[in-house]
Amino acid sequence: MNAPAQLPTNDVFSWPVRVYWEDTDGGGIVYYANYLKYFERARTEWLRALGLEQRKLQETAGGLFVVSEANVKFLRSARLDDMLQVTARLCEMGRSSFSIAQQVRLSLPHDAAQVLCTASVRVGWINSTTHRPARMPASVVDVFPR
Amino acid sequence: MNAPAQLPTNDVFSWPVRVYWEDTDGGGIVYYANYLKYFERARTEWLRALGLEQRKLQETAGGLFVVSEANVKFLRSARLDDMLQVTARLCEMGRSSFSIAQQVRLSLPHDAAQVLCTASVRVGWINSTTHRPARMPASVVDVFPR
Amino acid sequence: MNAPAQLPTNDVFSWPVRVYWEDTDGGGIVYYANYLKYFERARTEWLRALGLEQRKLQETAGGLFVVSEANVKFLRSARLDDMLQVTARLCEMGRSSFSIAQQVRLSLPHDAAQVLCTASVRVGWINSTTHRPARMPASVVDVFPR
Amino acid sequence: MNAPAQLPTNDVFSWPVRVYWEDTDGGGIVYYANYLKYFERARTEWLRALGLEQRKLQETAGGLFVVSEANVKFLRSARLDDMLQVTARLCEMGRSSFSIAQQVRLSLPHDAAQVLCTASVRVGWINSTTHRPARMPASVVDVFPR
Repeated sequence: MNAPAQLPTNDVFSWPVRVYWEDTDGGGIVYYANYLKYFERARTEWLRALGLEQRKLQETAGGLFVVSEANVKFLRSARLDDMLQVTARLCEMGRSSFSIAQQVRLSLPHDAAQVLCTASVRVGWINSTTHRPARMPASVVDVFPR
Repeated sequence: MNAPAQLPTNDVFSWPVRVYWEDTDGGGIVYYANYLKYFERARTEWLRALGLEQRKLQETAGGLFVVSEANVKFLRSARLDDMLQVTARLCEMGRSSFSIAQQVRLSLPHDAAQVLCTASVRVGWINSTTHRPARMPASVVDVFPR
Repeated sequence: MNAPAQLPTNDVFSWPVRVYWEDTDGGGIVYYANYLKYFERARTEWLRALGLEQRKLQETAGGLFVVSEANVKFLRSARLDDMLQVTARLCEMGRSSFSIAQQVRLSLPHDAAQVLCTASVRVGWINSTTHRPARMPASVVDVFPR
Repeated sequence: MNAPAQLPTNDVFSWPVRVYWEDTDGGGIVYYANYLKYFERARTEWLRALGLEQRKLQETAGGLFVVSEANVKFLRSARLDDMLQVTARLCEMGRSSFSIAQQVRLSLPHDAAQVLCTASVRVGWINSTTHRPARMPASVVDVFPR
């Protein structure tokens, strides 16, 4: 097997997310599992920006992206009404999975930002009927930047 | 079309639910949409008690139950660690839908309880491929009490 | 008690919502409770447009908006990647609650739209410490259109 | 600073979890963020078994447990109606945090089980007003097994 392609690290995708009541918990902060929803929204919009609509993929390519590993550090808490930026940066591209580095940043005045949460996420591909891991189709792999 | 069968009102199904952090919001109370999750869990367990497993139904009968209407009154708030009972009582049984009355009750000492939330819910049946409304198959209708 | 003020019906607030994986369920459609999240996001943005930030309200006015009643009709299903518009229109304004009509519409080409879900929602005010119903403070009531 | 106490590894807490519609996504499997909800439910019940009720803790000890790090491997998918066991095993106990190893296992016939998801989770303590990290009070630390 060939070594996965190392991708340039300076191409960061960013997506705005607002914190609503649904995201918070009784501690007055965003519930920890909800950062994974934020990360998934940013990955979805990054894929869409690359030309990949996942419902269409499921119908035409017969497969789904699934997260196989997520290593998450929760550094500071987001709260109701906070305006966040969620980033995605491709780190490693293989034939049946890719790795992506993500952050949740709190938007502050004067273009400043504070990192609240970081994650390293590995995303694989499964057959949407058997739910078994599979190689990504060429039509998927080819849209990623090299 | 025949009038839907009126069912006896004294047959109440009840299912225990514990409130976790995931259920609460920054107001320190259970987020309002989450009562609909509790109602759905109780309906699922009531269907299971009647012999209907919904994943199997989706595979063998090619259809899904879907909620077409929910009228919900939020009377009092549940909080973290509360122990709740969620009830389901069949009110009306038709050929393509049924109606069910549900409550969320806070369990109190000495077998007492306080009603926190009530709902009247209409559940229909859709074809799982076309997502169009359809008549419930006989294998489904026949399990309901008359 | 005075009759609540009847408000003009033509002032509709609208907020865009994208459907992500987190919103869908195993039936391939948006899970029914999640429409209540969408309605709440639109109410939050409508309140923000009126000048009310709810975290600040909780800290300064000592109270919270809570939904006391929601009557929801689920007409058609939204699916992954759908782009929705969620509307809010104030119907009735009282001293301790207001009523609001809401819709979830699927955005279609050529400025067309299809109504997927409608709701009539009553929102009250509670003391954020005691969680008891209370009158809305004047600073809150005064921002609503008359 | 003293080395954190190494705890015996054979004391595994286990909590049953049923998969409902709310947990699944349009891929027909449990949405990845929801495993973190399952892990949190099991930690909550493990703490309760040790005598710690978190709402009471928030009121009396003025603090909250928060997850500071979670490393999660998603190995196989759970689906609607699956019956799961979620485990928790204390690995390391410090003064301001502890580490816990967790698994989600699919219950199979004849007492067999299949590991679907594993996690290593670090839990800290924050002041519930300032949301700043703090040392756990003795009343909390003392309940943990040594």
